Amino acid sequence: MPRERIKVAILGATGYTALEAIRILLRHPEAEIVAVTSRQEGKPPISSVHPSLVGRLDLPLEDLTAEEVGARADCVFGCLPHAASAEILPRVLAAGAKVVDFSADYRLDDPATYREWYGHEHPDQERLGRTPYGLPELFRDRIRGATLVANPGCYSTSAILPLAPLLKAGLVAADDIIVDSKSGVSGAGRQPKLTTHFPECNESLSAYNVGRHRHTPEIEQVIARHAGVRPAVIFTPQLAPMDRGILSTIYAKPTKTVTEADVMGLLREAYAGERCVRIVDHLPATKDTVDTNCCDITARVVRGRVLLISCLDNLLKGAAGAAVQNFNLLFDLPEHAGMA
Amino acid sequence: MPRERIKVAILGATGYTALEAIRILLRHPEAEIVAVTSRQEGKPPISSVHPSLVGRLDLPLEDLTAEEVGARADCVFGCLPHAASAEILPRVLAAGAKVVDFSADYRLDDPATYREWYGHEHPDQERLGRTPYGLPELFRDRIRGATLVANPGCYSTSAILPLAPLLKAGLVAADDIIVDSKSGVSGAGRQPKLTTHFPECNESLSAYNVGRHRHTPEIEQVIARHAGVRPAVIFTPQLAPMDRGILSTIYAKPTKTVTEADVMGLLREAYAGERCVRIVDHLPATKDTVDTNCCDITARVVRGRVLLISCLDNLLKGAAGAAVQNFNLLFDLPEHAGMA
Amino acid sequence: MPRERIKVAILGATGYTALEAIRILLRHPEAEIVAVTSRQEGKPPISSVHPSLVGRLDLPLEDLTAEEVGARADCVFGCLPHAASAEILPRVLAAGAKVVDFSADYRLDDPATYREWYGHEHPDQERLGRTPYGLPELFRDRIRGATLVANPGCYSTSAILPLAPLLKAGLVAADDIIVDSKSGVSGAGRQPKLTTHFPECNESLSAYNVGRHRHTPEIEQVIARHAGVRPAVIFTPQLAPMDRGILSTIYAKPTKTVTEADVMGLLREAYAGERCVRIVDHLPATKDTVDTNCCDITARVVRGRVLLISCLDNLLKGAAGAAVQNFNLLFDLPEHAGMA
Amino acid sequence: MPRERIKVAILGATGYTALEAIRILLRHPEAEIVAVTSRQEGKPPISSVHPSLVGRLDLPLEDLTAEEVGARADCVFGCLPHAASAEILPRVLAAGAKVVDFSADYRLDDPATYREWYGHEHPDQERLGRTPYGLPELFRDRIRGATLVANPGCYSTSAILPLAPLLKAGLVAADDIIVDSKSGVSGAGRQPKLTTHFPECNESLSAYNVGRHRHTPEIEQVIARHAGVRPAVIFTPQLAPMDRGILSTIYAKPTKTVTEADVMGLLREAYAGERCVRIVDHLPATKDTVDTNCCDITARVVRGRVLLISCLDNLLKGAAGAAVQNFNLLFDLPEHAGMA
Repeated sequence: MPRERIKVAILGATGYTALEAIRILLRHPEAEIVAVTSRQEGKPPISSVHPSLVGRLDLPLEDLTAEEVGARADCVFGCLPHAASAEILPRVLAAGAKVVDFSADYRLDDPATYREWYGHEHPDQERLGRTPYGLPELFRDRIRGATLVANPGCYSTSAILPLAPLLKAGLVAADDIIVDSKSGVSGAGRQPKLTTHFPECNESLSAYNVGRHRHTPEIEQVIARHAGVRPAVIFTPQLAPMDRGILSTIYAKPTKTVTEADVMGLLREAYAGERCVRIVDHLPATKDTVDTNCCDITARVVRGRVLLISCLDNLLKGAAGAAVQNFNLLFDLPEHAGMA
Repeated sequence: MPRERIKVAILGATGYTALEAIRILLRHPEAEIVAVTSRQEGKPPISSVHPSLVGRLDLPLEDLTAEEVGARADCVFGCLPHAASAEILPRVLAAGAKVVDFSADYRLDDPATYREWYGHEHPDQERLGRTPYGLPELFRDRIRGATLVANPGCYSTSAILPLAPLLKAGLVAADDIIVDSKSGVSGAGRQPKLTTHFPECNESLSAYNVGRHRHTPEIEQVIARHAGVRPAVIFTPQLAPMDRGILSTIYAKPTKTVTEADVMGLLREAYAGERCVRIVDHLPATKDTVDTNCCDITARVVRGRVLLISCLDNLLKGAAGAAVQNFNLLFDLPEHAGMA
Repeated sequence: MPRERIKVAILGATGYTALEAIRILLRHPEAEIVAVTSRQEGKPPISSVHPSLVGRLDLPLEDLTAEEVGARADCVFGCLPHAASAEILPRVLAAGAKVVDFSADYRLDDPATYREWYGHEHPDQERLGRTPYGLPELFRDRIRGATLVANPGCYSTSAILPLAPLLKAGLVAADDIIVDSKSGVSGAGRQPKLTTHFPECNESLSAYNVGRHRHTPEIEQVIARHAGVRPAVIFTPQLAPMDRGILSTIYAKPTKTVTEADVMGLLREAYAGERCVRIVDHLPATKDTVDTNCCDITARVVRGRVLLISCLDNLLKGAAGAAVQNFNLLFDLPEHAGMA
Repeated sequence: MPRERIKVAILGATGYTALEAIRILLRHPEAEIVAVTSRQEGKPPISSVHPSLVGRLDLPLEDLTAEEVGARADCVFGCLPHAASAEILPRVLAAGAKVVDFSADYRLDDPATYREWYGHEHPDQERLGRTPYGLPELFRDRIRGATLVANPGCYSTSAILPLAPLLKAGLVAADDIIVDSKSGVSGAGRQPKLTTHFPECNESLSAYNVGRHRHTPEIEQVIARHAGVRPAVIFTPQLAPMDRGILSTIYAKPTKTVTEADVMGLLREAYAGERCVRIVDHLPATKDTVDTNCCDITARVVRGRVLLISCLDNLLKGAAGAAVQNFNLLFDLPEHAGMA
């Protein structure tokens, strides 16, 4: 008798991160996609929205209730906007499904910070601060027993992974950290806007949301959970003319004189045995990580300052790849099942 | 006493072709931009829409009537959508200004074809078929004395310039012509849409409007006016992941055995002395013509078929550059004034 | 006892198609990469050339003889340049390994055509014309029992798949076929050249090798093998500013009056049940096929001419994906093993 | 009698900055290009190397001696590599021509720093430290009377312009400055290399020369000349997948509590009346400055740190545009002649 596969539903399946999740799940040996939802009427086939899925996934886009989705699936990937997410996912959980939430709704520690950065009251405050943050490299044990995981922000992962071990070891000061990040345009989602209109952003670079990007408190709080010390981060997101990829260049002040070997040694130790974090000697390019679930990290010491450079694919290790890693942990599967 | 400059207004100044026209006019020795219009309220500075103009053009975007524009300017560049154009421009002309119309409204020969391809009645049918088509290389004399010029479509120019002399000379058959064109995304305008959303069209090529693109009748009718024979064209527009540039690869059947030297010789003769049409021996790249007002053309004979390859910058020789050429002719200025 | 995996070696592993083959084989359930070769000295790790492989493939690049490779592997993927390929692969075959040849050396029917298009004598003429062409959709039976497969050219696949069934059915004329193809830059290989230097080819389109591209006789001979009629093709390759993807727009003359439904029906019938050829109603974009092993095809009838539009990923269905399909057939594995 | 134009020669005319200089000079009302040089044999037309110049500049590429160039031209634009530049330009100066040197050879203060960063003895040490640095906004008076100008590095201009006034005013600390810069690929020159091969750098971001880029001492020394205080700068250059444009994000520590209004006010005052430095309220995009000779700058205060963001076109304000500005000053012409 063939083993039964775990039934997965994708809530909000028309975006880019949902598509990437679907593409991984289609080759996952233990998962089966049973429903894909969208508020569109008429149950169009999902391949009418994502033509790359023609002949590969023949499900209709359905406008299902939270309860219907929760009943039909063992696990739900929530690809809804923040706010909507925390309204709907509690009902999915109540219906008995486990949930990986791609939105920001369950990432922060407390309702006050959420209100400050997202501009409204969190509708499910009890789960705030109790939901594991879906970076297995830092929180694997908490994710394993959970029913809900907060899948990390793409920029956040690129900043937290290199910084967390250094802050935990007290190697760099918590109050003098700059994260200068550059992202491909898929990070801005699939809704057409002037800023992501091809002739506007192609052949151009620009900063946006300087000092006000919502991944700032996320980076700070998650590092604090892991390292026991809460950093203050200056975070500058920038849009680069490419589909995918994040490069974060991080500047931190060491607490004592350090060499590159010290920093690299600490990073190598922190991530020994981790398949999705690669500490590399060379300066990594985002392209080295595109279509992989890896975050590549290196370190340099320049004029006494520690430089950390990290690269990842914002749609994979920065979103759908991490989500499948979390899914695998939730269901006690091999952590990298489905991923090359 | 310094010579007075010719006053130019731009109707519908928020798009890409308007911006290019402004950039040329800013270095034109005889022109002065006196008004830029848009339906936005509150008279925002034009540089709030086009930040590259900060400090270079300090006019507000005004919501002016056709009469106000016509009274204020000696020449009006109409950068309005088709249909709107033929509603408004007659009133501008009545107010005494000359007009270069960027829209398709005055390019075709007759109201019936217009209705067939544009789906509504032409509101100014008398001027249809009597308005010179703004390709100076073919219709210079008619443009010179005019008050209204129909500025050509970008694809159309890339097809008409190479084909017209060959059809006029009877060198290729009129009934077996294929125009396979590829355009940069700025040709689709500045309105955000899913098809021009960066992550959709970047790193991708696709055909659109196959067999139904409105430049088809334009190419056919304009060639007929020049060559005396009306071709039937199969025209395939395709979107390429770049800002600007059109490459048209044209396949025509010779009426007798021809050599490359025959075809090149005929093209060289047809465009002898023309500064904006360059007959070149090498296979031109669109990049050779970007930021120039030139159309580069070469020819090959492959297995008995004539191949014509043309390149141009869709925003310059395909729009704003041609418009300034026409403006110069309307006002008896050196034809290439303002352009490198 | 776990089933033993099939040992695969990659000959010439530093290029883009080799990297793609490696990436597929790394997730292939029945294959194991046992050797990767290059003429570099000092056995550098393959990840020093392909940094995306850090931690995923820990083999050195070795300068092995044909005999060593043939002895070590059950199957060899030959990613060598043409001419070199036909010198070395016979020795690999003699050593007992099966071979998938990515080069053009075994694709043509006869030594004379090879000499004409490749400019030298073929060193292994006996196998010319007897080696199956690795398009399973057309030649599956011949591939299954073979020891050597000629993996198709990327442009060729994009032209042969749509044209072959129409020519076999006599629906279009063999002597009036135009294939206008546009390819991403990875198709030009990994050797830096001025034409593929970023600032030269980015934001630009150009044709190259017009009338002289070596895929021309390949398209013609392979269609002839399948359809029994040899077409004469005008083939125009063009370089587009993107990493991967081929869009071919094909113009053919029907032998009688046809409708779109006729052509689509014939294509649907020809590829019924094929997973890697998708006959689609919409106009496909290359991006729909990137990172898949699919070729998407649609048809239109414009002014009596049949238009076929095909899209594929030149590195996958156009190279490494097809190679793994062939590998699977050579070893009686499920044809799509390893591929999503 | 028409006024005679100033004769300009371009030494080393095959690169991208030379091409941009030529394009500006072609529309410069007072300049005439009289010679273009290259070490190629056979005097090929310059348009064979730069096809965009067909019909616009009909000079041959000549392999002239320094003395020949100096005798033929009133002004020489030296577009040679460093080291070669300081060998040849003294002979050009001796022959009587003025010189704008695009290379780094005359930018630094002293031979020791030059030796440290460029790895060899400077061959013309007397002019080191005495040659004006070609940023008119800071050193206009020194440039005006000169015969030789050191044209600035592209990254350097993007860092010096925003930082210099703040350091001069003592508003930010000299010892805590981070310059995180991202550049388009044309900045790497025209010589094909693997790192600038399209499929390598397209769709990718990466840092290079971290802590070792030669613009570091240039930024420090030039600011010191202007501000009287020498900063220590951590400079991180990064390659972005676009043709042109530099975005520098600069992090500096204020010496006292400052507001955005303070910083913006100081910048506005410093560059009041400057046409090529635009202090803007919005976050500028590189595209706002492409094809202009402008550097756009804004400032933010984030968590007590001053952020400066600057954008420019590396080939124009970062190279050829600045060169023409300097040329105009050398010959007492209107500073912006030839530029829109």
